[in-house]
Amino acid sequence: MTQDQERPQELTDISSLGEFGLIEHLTRDIQLRNPETLAGVGDDAAVIDNGPLATIVTKDLLVEGVHFDMVYTPLKHLGYKAIAVNLSDVYAMNAHPKQVFVGMAVSSRYSLEALEELYSGMKLACERYNVDMAGGDTTTSPAGLMLSITAVGQAEKEQIVYRSGARANDLLYVSGNLGGAYCGLLVLQREKQEFKANPQMQPKIKDYSYVLERQLKPEPRKDIIEMLQQAGVQPTSMIDVSDGLASDVLHICKHSGTGVNIYEEKLPLDQRMAQTAHEFNIDPTTCALSGGEDYELLFTISQNDYEKVKDLEAIHPIGHITEAAQGRNLFTSSGQLVKITAQGWDSMKK
Amino acid sequence: MTQDQERPQELTDISSLGEFGLIEHLTRDIQLRNPETLAGVGDDAAVIDNGPLATIVTKDLLVEGVHFDMVYTPLKHLGYKAIAVNLSDVYAMNAHPKQVFVGMAVSSRYSLEALEELYSGMKLACERYNVDMAGGDTTTSPAGLMLSITAVGQAEKEQIVYRSGARANDLLYVSGNLGGAYCGLLVLQREKQEFKANPQMQPKIKDYSYVLERQLKPEPRKDIIEMLQQAGVQPTSMIDVSDGLASDVLHICKHSGTGVNIYEEKLPLDQRMAQTAHEFNIDPTTCALSGGEDYELLFTISQNDYEKVKDLEAIHPIGHITEAAQGRNLFTSSGQLVKITAQGWDSMKK
Repeated sequence: MTQDQERPQELTDISSLGEFGLIEHLTRDIQLRNPETLAGVGDDAAVIDNGPLATIVTKDLLVEGVHFDMVYTPLKHLGYKAIAVNLSDVYAMNAHPKQVFVGMAVSSRYSLEALEELYSGMKLACERYNVDMAGGDTTTSPAGLMLSITAVGQAEKEQIVYRSGARANDLLYVSGNLGGAYCGLLVLQREKQEFKANPQMQPKIKDYSYVLERQLKPEPRKDIIEMLQQAGVQPTSMIDVSDGLASDVLHICKHSGTGVNIYEEKLPLDQRMAQTAHEFNIDPTTCALSGGEDYELLFTISQNDYEKVKDLEAIHPIGHITEAAQGRNLFTSSGQLVKITAQGWDSMKK
Repeated sequence: MTQDQERPQELTDISSLGEFGLIEHLTRDIQLRNPETLAGVGDDAAVIDNGPLATIVTKDLLVEGVHFDMVYTPLKHLGYKAIAVNLSDVYAMNAHPKQVFVGMAVSSRYSLEALEELYSGMKLACERYNVDMAGGDTTTSPAGLMLSITAVGQAEKEQIVYRSGARANDLLYVSGNLGGAYCGLLVLQREKQEFKANPQMQPKIKDYSYVLERQLKPEPRKDIIEMLQQAGVQPTSMIDVSDGLASDVLHICKHSGTGVNIYEEKLPLDQRMAQTAHEFNIDPTTCALSGGEDYELLFTISQNDYEKVKDLEAIHPIGHITEAAQGRNLFTSSGQLVKITAQGWDSMKK
């Protein structure tokens, strides 16, 4: 009746699988039973058939000490980001979020006023993206704060864009710029160390406002979805850049059964990000490839649609899809060919 | 940039509000923006309009050390129960669950084999209730295990039963029997204490298999939903008994703006539950009123439907709805009138 809380040596350490490996292992034998379940585990969100319209469902957990550090995360920003990253998953299906559901486990260390701050950020994001906070669950936690957000969206079935639709010769685009959120995190972590060493110090964050905003207050790219729709272009595949460009483009390649060529010189790098990266002695391209949390949209379009998007300034062509046999390659500015490997953020491997 | 982790005295302790008070406080100013959001915070589940069909969404958090104790909870049972209690919320809307989404935050103390056990229980529940595990999110946790389950269901709009539909003179019914799950918990807690005192002891649980099963492996009452449908009866209001009969009937009264009379002698008490309660010197009626976690269905029907259900053995009339001014009353077997107050389980107040 009792269970041994110690883990004997012959059992398998979950960190050996990583986050993606673990979920893949645990869900590998799942068979979908209901015809309404059009897509399950494995994309940005699940898709449920409801006649002409489909319902999109996605969920994300945010755990204190894993996904955020209360020392440098204002609660209002945390609330905003918790909603924003889930909406981003819905937009990445080319769908529109309509409702969010908030699960919160919170320790008694948090005051009501602190939770009001947190909720004010969540409500602000809901207001800005015209989404209803339609339910949830609140409970106590033995330690810390944990948020579990479920976002529900809607789309016409034929509008939905999966990770699996990329085909050889499709063009690969990314919105905005990459690497900024990671540089913001580096600045915050440095400030935390300096604050620990000298609690009287004033934070030196004025010069870093751009990268800090990228980290603390990401905006899901609803505007890109709308822009492409107005241009009459439906992406063939899409994902949001949450784990890092390298990791996320590999998701597209894996689900689509393709290769990819990406060109370093085409990666959209903001000057303020590059400056911060240099300060930390990190290659800005590394930040863009592996940093994660930029919540930009990474998508492919048919070459036939090139003319329709070539003047859109918010999106950038960074490469193209190839046959699987060609591999997944980065062509560096110095002319080298590098295999793309997932170095993205994985909470299991921290 | 930094936040004070200590809570100054002038801030409000969240435990002073309790779980329901907290969620009500934090969500009191929410305005629904989308016409598709038919019902938000405040019922067993939210309801989303999708044309002729509606989508039902509910979520629940299960936190180690709050909702379950790994010392006496087999992981397979925990997985089964985590799914079952969410399906119960969907049935309580008179809808059919179709998909579940599993969020899991887990510490490295858990082995892959332990998580396989957990998932085997979740998959078993999905199989038994014909539900797809359609997605989720897995991450690491600094300590312990936390499950966040979202269940999604479907119903024709006019079939959905809310908490708010009870009217004076409606009859109040409950399925199955009450109090067993709480008695099972008492047995498990006693065994834990005895095991701590003497780790060599053999658990004495053979005589308690019924109440232990009520606690460890609740079954959502899909059968009751189907039975009522076959009988041609649609409840006027419904809720599942998760917090305890007293707390849950007050939810119906509050949302419907009514009073209620319940008769102690009509409460369905299983003999095995009563025997265990006596052993712990607790009144079986107290277990039934305040125990919680039975996951039976509590519902009201119009008096006109009485003939259609009077021969159904799985459901029991326990009272009737009154005007709000009559109050919410329990008539005891000894003829006393007692005001019903919520003594149910509230994780915030533990």
